[in-house]
Amino acid sequence: MELITIGDELLLGFTVDTNAAHISRALAASGVEIVRRTTVGDEAEKISQAVREALDRTGAVITTGGLGPTSDDLTKPAIARIFGRGMKLDEGIAAKLEGRWRARFPNSTFPATNRTQAEIPDGARVLTNRHGTAPGIWLEDEKGRWVAMMPGVPREMRGMLAEELLPAIQARLDGPGSVVLSGTLRTTGIAESAIAELLGPNFLGDPQTELGALPLAYLPGVAGVDLRVTVKGLPRARAQELVKEAMVKLRSRVGAYAYGEDDADLAAVVLDRCRALKLKLAVAESCTGGMLGERLTNIPGSSDVFLGGVIAYHNELKKELLGVRAEDLERYGAVSEQVALQMAAGIREKTGGDVGISVTGIAGPGGGTRDKPVGLVWIAVHGSDAKARRFHVVGDRAEIRQRAAQAALEMVRRALSNG
Amino acid sequence: MELITIGDELLLGFTVDTNAAHISRALAASGVEIVRRTTVGDEAEKISQAVREALDRTGAVITTGGLGPTSDDLTKPAIARIFGRGMKLDEGIAAKLEGRWRARFPNSTFPATNRTQAEIPDGARVLTNRHGTAPGIWLEDEKGRWVAMMPGVPREMRGMLAEELLPAIQARLDGPGSVVLSGTLRTTGIAESAIAELLGPNFLGDPQTELGALPLAYLPGVAGVDLRVTVKGLPRARAQELVKEAMVKLRSRVGAYAYGEDDADLAAVVLDRCRALKLKLAVAESCTGGMLGERLTNIPGSSDVFLGGVIAYHNELKKELLGVRAEDLERYGAVSEQVALQMAAGIREKTGGDVGISVTGIAGPGGGTRDKPVGLVWIAVHGSDAKARRFHVVGDRAEIRQRAAQAALEMVRRALSNG
Repeated sequence: MELITIGDELLLGFTVDTNAAHISRALAASGVEIVRRTTVGDEAEKISQAVREALDRTGAVITTGGLGPTSDDLTKPAIARIFGRGMKLDEGIAAKLEGRWRARFPNSTFPATNRTQAEIPDGARVLTNRHGTAPGIWLEDEKGRWVAMMPGVPREMRGMLAEELLPAIQARLDGPGSVVLSGTLRTTGIAESAIAELLGPNFLGDPQTELGALPLAYLPGVAGVDLRVTVKGLPRARAQELVKEAMVKLRSRVGAYAYGEDDADLAAVVLDRCRALKLKLAVAESCTGGMLGERLTNIPGSSDVFLGGVIAYHNELKKELLGVRAEDLERYGAVSEQVALQMAAGIREKTGGDVGISVTGIAGPGGGTRDKPVGLVWIAVHGSDAKARRFHVVGDRAEIRQRAAQAALEMVRRALSNG
Repeated sequence: MELITIGDELLLGFTVDTNAAHISRALAASGVEIVRRTTVGDEAEKISQAVREALDRTGAVITTGGLGPTSDDLTKPAIARIFGRGMKLDEGIAAKLEGRWRARFPNSTFPATNRTQAEIPDGARVLTNRHGTAPGIWLEDEKGRWVAMMPGVPREMRGMLAEELLPAIQARLDGPGSVVLSGTLRTTGIAESAIAELLGPNFLGDPQTELGALPLAYLPGVAGVDLRVTVKGLPRARAQELVKEAMVKLRSRVGAYAYGEDDADLAAVVLDRCRALKLKLAVAESCTGGMLGERLTNIPGSSDVFLGGVIAYHNELKKELLGVRAEDLERYGAVSEQVALQMAAGIREKTGGDVGISVTGIAGPGGGTRDKPVGLVWIAVHGSDAKARRFHVVGDRAEIRQRAAQAALEMVRRALSNG
């Protein structure tokens, strides 16, 4: 199967193609392999060419984008032509679009431009869009080659994928067959090369064996290094067994650096641990400026564990809202062990939380000195006892902040593992 | 020119391809057009095939990924074979890698696996990596067809692109020639279809004219709707003129909904306005949980305007840290005009800021009621006067939070425009 994402905004780089990752992940979880992904602009000829090539290679193509109400809608007619089909107005869709519009904007007339969204290729099957206006399209020829077209708006695409397209694709996969499955072990606080040294060559076993032959990928990112094994072309049950074996083996060697599997989020891991231990959490952020709170509250249901916190960006707020001593700020500076510890203790006291966590650092690009360079971060955790740790993280401003937030969460996770 | 990003992690969707967007944007800003983007997995055959096809189409290809120290390194040999070249160890690179390792890990031996990073195709030119270990490669044949290979780690790729690859590409563009340029007008607080109605068809003019013929794209996102015009195949000076004309015309119609051009960030716009007016800003966040602070502090130099704030996720903190009255919380609920206004006033008082801004809402997926559904958000701005506004935003939890943060920034921008 291949994926084609359409849009000048993607090619020009103004939009990051999160749809592609989302679709790939959803299909991979179902055991379907995407073998190639292509992005082309909003030109009928380029779209046709890419779809035709992908159909020739795999006979199964998903597209996103080009279904909106405005002038860049070329996908449907271009793809209809490949299948030798014309376009026709679907009155049912047109009526639905108009009804939706009237419900939302009772005092304005339905724009004629929106009616083109109701046009579908002859003989196409409609993929219902419950989250927006543009319907999706499933087009198939007599040889069973198919193209599924979805809108580019992420929320609409995600809904349609889950409710319409994935069930349709799964229905086509006959019998057990062979699948593509993968497992990911997520680590943080250890460098890619240090893991490589720790594991050594052929870590999973003799490459002549099924387990040893699995490709092991190292995926470094701001959250840490992910280790991923992928099994291709085996029956589902055997693939699941192999992934599980590999995960157990990796976990036994990587040990405490591993915080979860697959799409585990360290913020969710920390919240779960606090929930199990009945602990309330609060944050005091300087250089991360709210990012730590943002990550924790990004997890649905975080409110039973996370109380909130203080963004003490300016030093006055460190004193007034967190009780950091003026003389320590003066003497040691805002990025210091003493200030980090006082921030963590202060937020715990202010909020009545069980665990206070603080981050203070120099995110750059300015503000670094010889003694306190950009990337220097102090993190403290104040719970049943108090700990502070110094980090020197690399990257640009955004990465330094992300790595600092991740390191702070990891310090809490470790503190609560030993407690 | 074409771009090929390599990695199983991209195809499987575990990594979002931010490199592709970054490279496309950087090239577009230089007037270079990427006509197609392809993603393939870590298989030598798939890599070769994609690079060969792209070379046939355009003769100029950039790749990212597959240059790391671990077992998924296949890019260099696969591409060398297309050019009929072998691989050889570059002793200079090997020495540099080893020196770097020893400086960082003085007590550990240089891993042999890292030496493969020092292998380059015969006749290749090295693109220096000042931000990591894996060097980039520029490979060119006698016909002038070329492939430039860069690492996949974003920080390393970005540095190499700016310092090595862009200058090399620009040096090849002989004379003025024709370019691809685009301009984006960023709007927020107005729906895509409402803009389409406002502009009507052929907004830029008669499609027979140069200006009227420019494609106008509507790009909806959580930050709002971007309007983008793109000029292709004209000399740089004329292209710049046309983009400017289109921007002026769009701005005159879209008016107050436009907050900036190109990659303008509303947080930076707000900070600039506060800076010009010598106003200090503080935030009180409930449902956004730190995201508003995160967005403001993401901008370098924000510390001269942004003081900090309180993440009052739990209602107790709204009372204790922001002075929200218990009886109003009880009577009107946390998501209400009264509480939003008290939060904004409270954070202003607590921090001594000139402008306090608050966000309280229901981000979902749980917690919604008939009267207060998921997506309901109250935002208040407390400065020389106080204003509160009710929003009903759509999307999943993450999108609701993002839209709420954007709406809060826009409320500040508008408040400071009239003040």
